[in-house]
Amino acid sequence: MIYDVTVIGGGAAGMSAALYASRGGMKTLLIEKLSCGGQAVKTYEVDNYPGFYNNPTGLELSNAIKTHALKFGAELVSETVKSITDAHKMIKTVNTRKNSYQTRTVILATGATPKKLNIPGEEELFGMGVSYCATCDGAFFKDKDVVVIGGGNTACEDALYLAHFCKNVYILNRSDKFKAQKVILDRVKAAKNITVYTDMVAERFDGKSSLERVYARNVKTLERGFINAAGALVAIGITPDSELARLTGVETCERGFIKTDMYLKTNIDGIYAAGDVRVSPLRQIITAASDGAVSAAQAINYVNGL
Amino acid sequence: MIYDVTVIGGGAAGMSAALYASRGGMKTLLIEKLSCGGQAVKTYEVDNYPGFYNNPTGLELSNAIKTHALKFGAELVSETVKSITDAHKMIKTVNTRKNSYQTRTVILATGATPKKLNIPGEEELFGMGVSYCATCDGAFFKDKDVVVIGGGNTACEDALYLAHFCKNVYILNRSDKFKAQKVILDRVKAAKNITVYTDMVAERFDGKSSLERVYARNVKTLERGFINAAGALVAIGITPDSELARLTGVETCERGFIKTDMYLKTNIDGIYAAGDVRVSPLRQIITAASDGAVSAAQAINYVNGL
Repeated sequence: MIYDVTVIGGGAAGMSAALYASRGGMKTLLIEKLSCGGQAVKTYEVDNYPGFYNNPTGLELSNAIKTHALKFGAELVSETVKSITDAHKMIKTVNTRKNSYQTRTVILATGATPKKLNIPGEEELFGMGVSYCATCDGAFFKDKDVVVIGGGNTACEDALYLAHFCKNVYILNRSDKFKAQKVILDRVKAAKNITVYTDMVAERFDGKSSLERVYARNVKTLERGFINAAGALVAIGITPDSELARLTGVETCERGFIKTDMYLKTNIDGIYAAGDVRVSPLRQIITAASDGAVSAAQAINYVNGL
Repeated sequence: MIYDVTVIGGGAAGMSAALYASRGGMKTLLIEKLSCGGQAVKTYEVDNYPGFYNNPTGLELSNAIKTHALKFGAELVSETVKSITDAHKMIKTVNTRKNSYQTRTVILATGATPKKLNIPGEEELFGMGVSYCATCDGAFFKDKDVVVIGGGNTACEDALYLAHFCKNVYILNRSDKFKAQKVILDRVKAAKNITVYTDMVAERFDGKSSLERVYARNVKTLERGFINAAGALVAIGITPDSELARLTGVETCERGFIKTDMYLKTNIDGIYAAGDVRVSPLRQIITAASDGAVSAAQAINYVNGL
């Protein structure tokens, strides 16, 4: 049997791709190694997926999208993809530990993972004040104090974003140099309610049912202290899950994200990328779902042309 | 008073932009000339906005997005925008018939309108078999006969799309020449369940509670006849509502759609475009909602940099 569309990754992008492909009459396979939902499942509360105005949990929203995705006949298997062979041929093969699936097109929706600090309290308070996405979760900290950890463009942009509606924003940067562009850093320094601490690393997140304070240490003086805060945005980078793509010969940027054109085509005919794993202007559940639709529409056009 | 973000157009793109901008702490104005919802409101049933798996009506979905969009403090006014002045300045002015609004950024989400045939039954049976979007509505005609009206790339791609799951697809083209590229037309001709009628114009859509048949006339022989069909896809073009953009000096493509980069920036600093009005790989409610998020995130970054 040959599938028309095989989607690898069951986050919002992959589920949406499976929805659009199967609804478009494609024989569609969705392969997810764990359970569907992707990063969104780990989110306590989602209040910016347009239309779901009652703050669903990430799991509730993901389950709704999953129900939808499987409504039109897409098959879902829980397997880990090891390789894609014959990627440049008309019939490609997706190999998991257990099986090999033949397919005309592949949509890579393997996602990305924010880098962790790996400090005490980080896992326990994740979704309860500790966050990796200011656009997603910042609004929960309105009129409160927040800490941003990191010194790159994202950390500084997050701080500026939060400064609009949070009381005070504290940036902890592990050195006295910032990776952020000067123009962005200048805006941070000019903001009235942003305080920058250099040579500072977060050591522990503390709080009972939600984050209450961030313990930190100065790496030069070794002095310790804490900042009272309801939110902590960890912005030290994001790692695309693109090893499979690279092994397959799919082109990525220097940071490892998959390069696509506006149609979400990769450099290999019949292989598309959707969601967090691709070079993208914004990584949100709504943008991932949109990517799924666009990539599936392109895959359908491609299959129609074979 | 100066707004940070002014969104023009209250369809899915504009409402999502207002949601993201206001949630990001921007003073946000949403201007819609009629009532919110855009093209989606006219859709009887939406079953491909990921997560809403219970086939809401277009109005239900739009109302959910509207509730969401206004939850974070965006102001909504029902006015018709006449012009944007000082577009190249840091503070731009959006002029309606009644008022002038000062704003740091503008998001153009003015949408697009599918071209109508203007024949009897078209309005009455719209959403009840008559459709202007195969990706949106095609799945409702599974295992049924459908008529596609038009001879361009979109009409032929729609026919190929429908041929996967519809019983028979009939294309009516008004001349014996097709605007579609040869490669696409060849695929249409090779498809087993697509029949092409040239020199044929649709004259009337007929049916009691939903479409039952399409009356057509041969423009050369003047012979009349009808095709029994549950669906009719009118694919004779789509007109972007981009006159305001053009008057403002925003660059458009030869078909009138607004040109943007991947960040949805136009050629004018601080002016963005989102949804159906822009050059886009796919026009769906989900892609419009995503565009709203992306454009708002960019507008926020821009305002932070002023």
